[in-house]
Amino acid sequence: MLKDLKDMVYEANMELPKRGLITYTWGNVSGIDREKGLFVIKPSGVEYEDLKPEDMVVVDLEGNVVEGKYKPSSDTATHLELYKAFEKVGGIVHTHSPWATSWAQATRAIPCYGTTHADYFYGAIPCARGLTEEEINGAYEKNTGLVIIETFKGIDPMSIPGVLCSNHGPFTWGKDAKEAVHNAVVLEEVAKMASRTERLNPEVLPAPQVLLDKHYLRKHGANAYYGQN
Amino acid sequence: MLKDLKDMVYEANMELPKRGLITYTWGNVSGIDREKGLFVIKPSGVEYEDLKPEDMVVVDLEGNVVEGKYKPSSDTATHLELYKAFEKVGGIVHTHSPWATSWAQATRAIPCYGTTHADYFYGAIPCARGLTEEEINGAYEKNTGLVIIETFKGIDPMSIPGVLCSNHGPFTWGKDAKEAVHNAVVLEEVAKMASRTERLNPEVLPAPQVLLDKHYLRKHGANAYYGQN
Amino acid sequence: MLKDLKDMVYEANMELPKRGLITYTWGNVSGIDREKGLFVIKPSGVEYEDLKPEDMVVVDLEGNVVEGKYKPSSDTATHLELYKAFEKVGGIVHTHSPWATSWAQATRAIPCYGTTHADYFYGAIPCARGLTEEEINGAYEKNTGLVIIETFKGIDPMSIPGVLCSNHGPFTWGKDAKEAVHNAVVLEEVAKMASRTERLNPEVLPAPQVLLDKHYLRKHGANAYYGQN
Amino acid sequence: MLKDLKDMVYEANMELPKRGLITYTWGNVSGIDREKGLFVIKPSGVEYEDLKPEDMVVVDLEGNVVEGKYKPSSDTATHLELYKAFEKVGGIVHTHSPWATSWAQATRAIPCYGTTHADYFYGAIPCARGLTEEEINGAYEKNTGLVIIETFKGIDPMSIPGVLCSNHGPFTWGKDAKEAVHNAVVLEEVAKMASRTERLNPEVLPAPQVLLDKHYLRKHGANAYYGQN
Repeated sequence: MLKDLKDMVYEANMELPKRGLITYTWGNVSGIDREKGLFVIKPSGVEYEDLKPEDMVVVDLEGNVVEGKYKPSSDTATHLELYKAFEKVGGIVHTHSPWATSWAQATRAIPCYGTTHADYFYGAIPCARGLTEEEINGAYEKNTGLVIIETFKGIDPMSIPGVLCSNHGPFTWGKDAKEAVHNAVVLEEVAKMASRTERLNPEVLPAPQVLLDKHYLRKHGANAYYGQN
Repeated sequence: MLKDLKDMVYEANMELPKRGLITYTWGNVSGIDREKGLFVIKPSGVEYEDLKPEDMVVVDLEGNVVEGKYKPSSDTATHLELYKAFEKVGGIVHTHSPWATSWAQATRAIPCYGTTHADYFYGAIPCARGLTEEEINGAYEKNTGLVIIETFKGIDPMSIPGVLCSNHGPFTWGKDAKEAVHNAVVLEEVAKMASRTERLNPEVLPAPQVLLDKHYLRKHGANAYYGQN
Repeated sequence: MLKDLKDMVYEANMELPKRGLITYTWGNVSGIDREKGLFVIKPSGVEYEDLKPEDMVVVDLEGNVVEGKYKPSSDTATHLELYKAFEKVGGIVHTHSPWATSWAQATRAIPCYGTTHADYFYGAIPCARGLTEEEINGAYEKNTGLVIIETFKGIDPMSIPGVLCSNHGPFTWGKDAKEAVHNAVVLEEVAKMASRTERLNPEVLPAPQVLLDKHYLRKHGANAYYGQN
Repeated sequence: MLKDLKDMVYEANMELPKRGLITYTWGNVSGIDREKGLFVIKPSGVEYEDLKPEDMVVVDLEGNVVEGKYKPSSDTATHLELYKAFEKVGGIVHTHSPWATSWAQATRAIPCYGTTHADYFYGAIPCARGLTEEEINGAYEKNTGLVIIETFKGIDPMSIPGVLCSNHGPFTWGKDAKEAVHNAVVLEEVAKMASRTERLNPEVLPAPQVLLDKHYLRKHGANAYYGQN
């Protein structure tokens, strides 16, 4: 069932330790088959070195496990809400990657200080508000998703494919699981450089909008001219 | 004698350089057999690359070496006091891992800024008071243990499985040697992110208690739902 | 065509991920054959692990692709302007290496704080002014080159073989592609240490000019005595 | 000639890149045979990957090359002065390791903030004064040695086996080349943690003298009880 998607989601999960985004089991990747209305996600708390493609869990958009010997990631309900609200998203990643998590713990959005950021994220990477006591004590993981969605009111999630959850860590996404991981790697690099930029110049301003437009549109949209396409 | 325990303690010791917590011989792991009242610990000052399972030293709870061709770790008396006072502890680790040691040198507890911390440590990771001149010039390693125990007066050591010793470095523990090392790795990661969090937001407050409750209890205790159990 | 140059430029490109200067495809190296008036450059957006020497693209000094199945790097026009203006330059590198990029995002020149810097860069590494809106919306990559050239008015580019582009990242160069990469590695190391130096001593001054003279001239020019020549 | 010493000095040099203390050829190790009055040192500017034990250069205490096809390190005259003045020193290392060099560029001594430092360096690691213009323009490398010796007036160099040279980088030493490299690794680790300690607590004081005494004397001198001896 969904063998190709499981393979891709498995490969995307294995990129997390390889790229240094993960300590132990602190992350998960999922990918969706929009036609079938099913997504595939890493099982909860299984060590990366033991993981196999067939361990990926298949879940439907009501949150029912359709196939899999393991319980799905404890963050499954967050992924689910994002898939329902962000219809172009094909893959989602959650990590506790250290630089992005440090911004999340500082409850700050990451300003766009340069072209590395603008090549992938068309503006500041927002930090979602903290959940209320009711939201935390209720359906916590689902509410985490709803607060992310609230944060993106009026923002195209495909133009800013990531968010920081206050006192928690980042979620990123993309057109598929592979691109979502790519964006998680970029987020971590951008978070690191933004912190160092502020240390070097505490008065620094975000990069000019015209430079962001140039770089984002050099890589994305109808007039893109980066790469081989 | 205690072959399985020696193997586990050996493996746990070898995790320290593999996880980047150790320079040269700056660390030691022990594990206890509560029924027999004996613990097994790394020998003092032996290079990790030369270490073998059978080099582990067996010590009783009066501090006598029961078996072993080497002298036990110079920190053995600290381990001993912790085993006597913290009866659920099955394994103990001491390192000079750089981020945790920097907090210890700054003589500061690590505030709980997020869920990564709360998943493992149910509140701030305390920094024990400095030893007095008498305590240092007396039974230094034993007194190090006693000051840690004093620090945990009124705290369940299993809910906050680690401590910083002022101007020295961290100790962590767990239900066995493997979990103690796991907690040492988490402590180092949490110490790194807390430092960066404060740099990004010097006014930052600890994460809300309700979020800490949610995350700690998601992984620990009767209603835990993280992982496959 | 230009097989030796392609091999050298390929090897120089492959040094970027090996030396940790590169995430994904965020960099490019070129090298020029001055007699033939042709330069060889990495193709745009091709993964380093897939790159082969024969994938390098040959471009003339009017910017025409003379040979190559791929599109050249999107930064080709910047390389071109630098080759035309800096006649002793034989190789050029662009990266988003994290420390140098952080200085570029902070829009600050890197002061010369010590001999590591002075051994390779004979003075502060300048940060070029930001491009105007017209320059960004016009021939952006060409204008990036022109602003670098403007920055070096009155400076010998061979004595300070690198620059930071505001809100973007570094370019370095050298007598060939290999030396240009060498200078990119040095720049990253110097950028890291300069940041840490300022953290340790916010009042720090640049190193004395007489020390810079000594170190630079120990390695460069007629009286050099470092190395085996 | 001096085959065993060449082997040890070669191995010690090769530790520098392995331990991450070195970029390119930015470092050198020497070792002395006190009976013969000869020391062995790395050749100048030769890549580590090309280095072989027989490439080590033999120098006498007047600075004459006694054997070797290569020129000795450009810092040979500094090593020479240190060997002449510090009679118990058997090996010397110079690097531009990034954390120690950052302190040297900040022209600050490294305070002793904890036991990691005190286990190896019995007090602050001094930063030598900058050389005068005359000293730089004269016998620069020899004068570098003389200023280090001046810095250790009244200090036993075996109890504080390292120094920072202002705007330059560290030298360390030990009873032989192997121990000198060991101390270079410790210095880098201590320099890193001291910087982070100050960031975490700008008001931090050095560790109490009684704790330094305890730790230094636990490892060194007649009453040492660390390790297997």
